[in-house]
Amino acid sequence: MKVKVVTRILEANERIAAENRRLFDEARVYVINLMSAPGAGKTSLLEKTIKELNGKIKTAVIEGDIAGTSDAERIGSLGVPVIQINTGGACHLDANMINEVLESLPLKEPDLLFVENVGNLVCPAEFNIGEDMKVMLLSITEGDDKPLKYPLMFQESSALILNNIDLLPYTNASTEKIRKDAMSLNPSLKIFEVSCKTGKGIAEWADWLTERVKS
Amino acid sequence: MKVKVVTRILEANERIAAENRRLFDEARVYVINLMSAPGAGKTSLLEKTIKELNGKIKTAVIEGDIAGTSDAERIGSLGVPVIQINTGGACHLDANMINEVLESLPLKEPDLLFVENVGNLVCPAEFNIGEDMKVMLLSITEGDDKPLKYPLMFQESSALILNNIDLLPYTNASTEKIRKDAMSLNPSLKIFEVSCKTGKGIAEWADWLTERVKS
Repeated sequence: MKVKVVTRILEANERIAAENRRLFDEARVYVINLMSAPGAGKTSLLEKTIKELNGKIKTAVIEGDIAGTSDAERIGSLGVPVIQINTGGACHLDANMINEVLESLPLKEPDLLFVENVGNLVCPAEFNIGEDMKVMLLSITEGDDKPLKYPLMFQESSALILNNIDLLPYTNASTEKIRKDAMSLNPSLKIFEVSCKTGKGIAEWADWLTERVKS
Repeated sequence: MKVKVVTRILEANERIAAENRRLFDEARVYVINLMSAPGAGKTSLLEKTIKELNGKIKTAVIEGDIAGTSDAERIGSLGVPVIQINTGGACHLDANMINEVLESLPLKEPDLLFVENVGNLVCPAEFNIGEDMKVMLLSITEGDDKPLKYPLMFQESSALILNNIDLLPYTNASTEKIRKDAMSLNPSLKIFEVSCKTGKGIAEWADWLTERVKS
């Protein structure tokens, strides 16, 4: 019974995700669904990336949080169109939540729309929102055992961004183990090592992204 | 419709949690539901705590993960009874998952049973498992904005353990802000600052825990 309900929810989600997809195509906007555990640095990555893309790619952001507007305020201060979704308890964004805010965004203006999902390494990976690409962020401080413990997100993502690489010497984590385990789950995964604090690796990631948006 | 289903799931969970509670009382075992975001250091905290309690308090552990057995292997190497639950995709432990493994544990032997939940700062807080106390762990590297963004877990927990406090100088996080926001959500929250790497703060936390288990 429970499974049937879940299946029905996921089917409904796919239908609305396809409708979002149609709207994104019409507006010619590339959409990234950005996911990670809480505190891995999604908003910091967006801040750095938006500044790096400034003058080259027009961006907009949808922020997803259970509660609060602090992330939207951070992004808004960069002068980029931003909308905050508060899920009110739900642990992920779904296609319908995105669909409901699309009319409040000037969808035809940006080339690239980032959707920052709720901080959660599990559930967001199950819900398509009509995105072009899922990207996940992993803080090196979370340890190198995450790919094998949270496989779905690594399988669903097109790119993995290893953040806080400046803290690597203070952890027991091995980037080699993360790379090996993540690639075993998803051989086409593109992996970047960055530090949102020092800016290391941001340019390389932004260049790769620019290519995708412009193609 | 969706809300009704969720309510029914939570009601069924409460019923089984009460049955677990009865079994725990019968066996005179104190049960802690340990929750955090992925990679905050739950297993590391258990390793340090179990060693600190050795000779004073007998412990056992239930490990919850979506996939894999690496945490159970780490705990097992300490010579402590341990069972691994693989949720196979589910983002939290529920009372029924616990109930199903209880007969495989020598429940009358330990004084204290730790249940390490799936790494997730959202959903585990909604599901009682019959525990005496919920304890949450927050890595300082996750930032100081987490209480206001994930309020339920801070409200449901009796204790908050701030881990990786040795990394504080390398972050922008403020422990004062975390304390202030967490206490505004839950004025009776007990807060510890620890480093599972250096061992700082572990003795204080273990002493506080011992008092509760023995009372």
